[in-house]
Amino acid sequence: MNVQIRNETTIDMRRMAHAIRFLSMDAIVRAADGHPGTPLGGADIATALFARHLKFDAANPTWPDRDRFVHSAGHGSMLLYSLLCLCGYEKIDIEQVKNFRVLGSHTAGHPEYDPEAGIETTTGPLGQGIANAVGMAVAERILNARFGDGIVDHYTYAYTGDGCLMEGIAAEVIALAGHLKLGKLVFLWDDNQMTDDGPTDQAVSEDQCVRFENNGWHVQRVDGHDPEAVAEAIARAKTDDRPSMIACRTLIGFGVPRIQNDRAAHGGKITTEDTDAARANLGWSHAPFELPAEIEAAWREAGARGAHAREAWQERLDALPAQQRAEWDRLMAGDLPQGWTDGLTAKKTQLAQAGDMPGIKASGEMVAALAEVIPELISGAPDLEAATQHKRQLRPFTASDRSGRYIHYGVREHAMGAMMNGMTVHGGIVAMGTTFLVFSDYMRHTLRMAALMRIPGLFVFSHDSIGIGKNGPTHQPVEYLASLRAYPHMWTIRPADSVEMAEAWELGLTHRTGPTSIICSRQPLAVVRQDTGTENRSAKGAYVLAEAEGARQATILATGSEVAVALKAREILAEDGIATAVVSMPCWELFEAQPRAYRDEVLGEAPRVAVEAAVRFGWDRYIGAEGAFVGMDGFGASGDYADVFSHFGITPEAVAEAVRLSL
Amino acid sequence: MNVQIRNETTIDMRRMAHAIRFLSMDAIVRAADGHPGTPLGGADIATALFARHLKFDAANPTWPDRDRFVHSAGHGSMLLYSLLCLCGYEKIDIEQVKNFRVLGSHTAGHPEYDPEAGIETTTGPLGQGIANAVGMAVAERILNARFGDGIVDHYTYAYTGDGCLMEGIAAEVIALAGHLKLGKLVFLWDDNQMTDDGPTDQAVSEDQCVRFENNGWHVQRVDGHDPEAVAEAIARAKTDDRPSMIACRTLIGFGVPRIQNDRAAHGGKITTEDTDAARANLGWSHAPFELPAEIEAAWREAGARGAHAREAWQERLDALPAQQRAEWDRLMAGDLPQGWTDGLTAKKTQLAQAGDMPGIKASGEMVAALAEVIPELISGAPDLEAATQHKRQLRPFTASDRSGRYIHYGVREHAMGAMMNGMTVHGGIVAMGTTFLVFSDYMRHTLRMAALMRIPGLFVFSHDSIGIGKNGPTHQPVEYLASLRAYPHMWTIRPADSVEMAEAWELGLTHRTGPTSIICSRQPLAVVRQDTGTENRSAKGAYVLAEAEGARQATILATGSEVAVALKAREILAEDGIATAVVSMPCWELFEAQPRAYRDEVLGEAPRVAVEAAVRFGWDRYIGAEGAFVGMDGFGASGDYADVFSHFGITPEAVAEAVRLSL
Repeated sequence: MNVQIRNETTIDMRRMAHAIRFLSMDAIVRAADGHPGTPLGGADIATALFARHLKFDAANPTWPDRDRFVHSAGHGSMLLYSLLCLCGYEKIDIEQVKNFRVLGSHTAGHPEYDPEAGIETTTGPLGQGIANAVGMAVAERILNARFGDGIVDHYTYAYTGDGCLMEGIAAEVIALAGHLKLGKLVFLWDDNQMTDDGPTDQAVSEDQCVRFENNGWHVQRVDGHDPEAVAEAIARAKTDDRPSMIACRTLIGFGVPRIQNDRAAHGGKITTEDTDAARANLGWSHAPFELPAEIEAAWREAGARGAHAREAWQERLDALPAQQRAEWDRLMAGDLPQGWTDGLTAKKTQLAQAGDMPGIKASGEMVAALAEVIPELISGAPDLEAATQHKRQLRPFTASDRSGRYIHYGVREHAMGAMMNGMTVHGGIVAMGTTFLVFSDYMRHTLRMAALMRIPGLFVFSHDSIGIGKNGPTHQPVEYLASLRAYPHMWTIRPADSVEMAEAWELGLTHRTGPTSIICSRQPLAVVRQDTGTENRSAKGAYVLAEAEGARQATILATGSEVAVALKAREILAEDGIATAVVSMPCWELFEAQPRAYRDEVLGEAPRVAVEAAVRFGWDRYIGAEGAFVGMDGFGASGDYADVFSHFGITPEAVAEAVRLSL
Repeated sequence: MNVQIRNETTIDMRRMAHAIRFLSMDAIVRAADGHPGTPLGGADIATALFARHLKFDAANPTWPDRDRFVHSAGHGSMLLYSLLCLCGYEKIDIEQVKNFRVLGSHTAGHPEYDPEAGIETTTGPLGQGIANAVGMAVAERILNARFGDGIVDHYTYAYTGDGCLMEGIAAEVIALAGHLKLGKLVFLWDDNQMTDDGPTDQAVSEDQCVRFENNGWHVQRVDGHDPEAVAEAIARAKTDDRPSMIACRTLIGFGVPRIQNDRAAHGGKITTEDTDAARANLGWSHAPFELPAEIEAAWREAGARGAHAREAWQERLDALPAQQRAEWDRLMAGDLPQGWTDGLTAKKTQLAQAGDMPGIKASGEMVAALAEVIPELISGAPDLEAATQHKRQLRPFTASDRSGRYIHYGVREHAMGAMMNGMTVHGGIVAMGTTFLVFSDYMRHTLRMAALMRIPGLFVFSHDSIGIGKNGPTHQPVEYLASLRAYPHMWTIRPADSVEMAEAWELGLTHRTGPTSIICSRQPLAVVRQDTGTENRSAKGAYVLAEAEGARQATILATGSEVAVALKAREILAEDGIATAVVSMPCWELFEAQPRAYRDEVLGEAPRVAVEAAVRFGWDRYIGAEGAFVGMDGFGASGDYADVFSHFGITPEAVAEAVRLSL
């Protein structure tokens, strides 16, 4: 099929789009790998956005009030890299494009979060990008409510394919975005009716436009190869107070005769024969990686188009009252308010004095206290407000009140996780969310993305063991601590009591290079730490909570609710004259980061027994393959929690017996 | 609000529903725990279904052609237990109801899979139940296509609340069920407009009826407290050739003045004061756990209503030709066809001779071979047909062809996992599904449910490491092997070559008490096993692949693609005169089940080094905390796969060096 140039006025944008196409194809051919379908099919859409609408300044990629562009269909990453290169982002120059998918380049197979390079979030696992975008749009409104239109007033655009829309997470965020009336959010749907497996009608019967409308979105349909039409649609989308979805009808692999409108375009190999054919087909006579001066100039102009807006914004920022300006700078630096830890020691003491308390309640107490001193702390719990108590005095963020700080996610854990990531990469927000530990599975990939992007995020997972009792094994995690500890860059902290809980929150808030999971019990935790000074003992990951009286004959290692079990075992053993130390190990990752001497000292040389109401997997690191472990070797059971602990033999007596046998 | 008895003809069903209400409340009060809202609100809906439509025979709970009833809103489990008790299921008698949520009872907090008790699948994590139901409806059609209407012709009903519909998985299965025109599937939506957090309009703006219609469903709205209306709607649903959703408008906590239509009804405590008030309100004068004879009789009649149908079905079954009957019996017993392993040894040899082959391709070869001898093997890959090659000669299962054996799930991994579980618990199907290992996160909770239910299921996860190369870290699993190995009851098998792949399939198909994950490389695997006899060496989980030449000085442990790395390291070490054994460890779970003597013999007493292109987590069991591990300590990188392996130091040289240092 030949390109139909139907409107002389669009010739420039169409040729600009061709520049994307050829740059992308040349890079993919050079890499001998990559997904050509999206950059070829979506080039006109992307051109309309970048050349006419997107508010950005390629020379200042991290300008805080830039529009955000999320390339959700991450496999088509060359579309994004071509755009960034053409617009003049320094970090994505032509050499980077030539090194597409080469080790060490910024042009990875799928886009990897790098705001300096113009990459707003990591995308690849379908659905994550559009969900991040919804979080960004929430963050924008929250900051707008605090700083006004002069400082925060930008759009969030997400480019999505069919795959993102089929994933379950899409339904969750489309519903929420519509419900929350995120009017500055625009989805550009590359509606090419083709996936890797073939025509979408193999697996899709739904009308996507009806779907979005039913969720409260503003919906338009346009010819995705008519950049003027796309640009006009974006203009209309911007003025509607609902989130907008623009269905852009395209041909996947546009311009390459062999693969156009064919499933082979999705991720199939292309060769120089294909690029030659495309050059002939699209009337493009330039050599690989070269483009005519006027096209290059047009793209550079697009890249610089936002400079004036940025300068004007900077003037408005500079005109802010000093206190507001300082607050803004703090938020953008990702720093916590000065003095935020001032009340922590008092809070620790207060919590210790309050006596036995469920871990999740203690965490809620921390949120209540911290929310008062950290105004950017945003909370949420997918339909578990009562069970998690992390809303407290916070008002909800709603369609009519953007100053709220608690998000009613509905029963949508996956949306919460991905939106938290989106808020975090947007900047200016400390995102926290809580649900039951078993439901972390529903948002699991979002934890991975946070760890991979090395971004913070506070994930509070409650109801952490058989200690939930009667709700039974579906709600009793046993394998989750292991599966969370397996993540690189994430801290998994399981506090033993309210004091460790306070310390966990302090740690989580200071962890800047990865997410933190705080694991909470449902059942009351006895206070095991009476020392509530300024020292954060959990910061070393593990420490001797109760030293042996006399020369250490055994060491019991424990976390969370089982620390109290260990302490009781220690008493039983003391009666037998066995001098036993109890080590609380709230965070393995932090412990592993300690010097060898400290770790050796804590673990000691005496036989070790571990107790944790979870599977053994991972514990052999500390107790050896032959060491005794008191815990679970299968799933739990429904019953009173004390009965369940007894049933599975996780008791002080059993731990004491295991210690005796290990001697 | 008083109950409005608007129609004298419905009095019986309404009173039958009250029996559910009081039995449920009495049990919840006695347990001092549980979720009253659903049994109170949904009693009329359930009564209409069980008393008028559901084809079942309480005296023969596992009758294969029974209608399936899935209680997806599992927290309201007392609704199900009351129904089963009232209908006369032996395993759920009044004592069980009185022991609701007591350790050891069949009446767990959430329903746990037990077909003998009338519990068709484990529900609790919202969304899983309705998704299982879609899988059951697929299984029904597949078996119907093989055995005809006389033997397989039943409906699948799922009772769903708002929570299930908000979860992302709901969107995936609603879309697929509509697309596949599963006309014998009926969702009964308990539309009470209330969740644990409060009114649904806090988080939902979507019109569910429009949503279902847009997905090709037949939709009706009825008064959910009018059992006759519900029964009539079900009758209409049964005759429509689309899947049906019946929106039953109800009041949560119906009948209990304090909590009716209030969020407190969802999971809040109720007391005898509440039950007294309900007794007065609903005109129910019977003591706790007691009911009038005529109501009891009506329920027993409902429970026996299907006996004639079952007998007639049995006659039709008995009239089947012997061969077809034997096939049916085999399928219902969950046995594989006689002689299914006959070709395996030849296949092993053929694969070994084919030389280097990607793991996923070898798995595809196995599916192709096994599909020919196991007609109940149903395959699928969410939009990864080309990359996984697990369709091959199989025709798709579509709305118009129910004899197909490959399901085009679309980009919907979570749907696949839960539908596989649904097919498995339905019976008569060997369910397998494949996707990339990183996307196992999207279906993770379905793996948990399979493990928890101890049901089989073949989950083939491909692209298993940095070996995928250029697609980069979003698609490179590093933490997944650990997180899968942490599951109780699941076998995680990572074959080293095509021969071990054949063995993995043999093992997976014989694993009847839990699911099996088969982990496949994208990159070619060299053949490391030339012995292709009938012995399945992988069955012991780990074995000495290459013994040291002379007294063992070191042992290298490896899995999957790293076994070849280990073998090359062994050669390097041999040149240095270091006698090294290489142990292939495809399945840790199976290895742990071996006798101590075997494990000791395999692992040996020489220093051990492990190599796996994944994180160390879990390996300390075999190498100790001080042992050398060659693998990943963070996420991967985008680049040519050989470059990436070198970059991360997973090379024969690095392994050899680690061995030298360990001596």
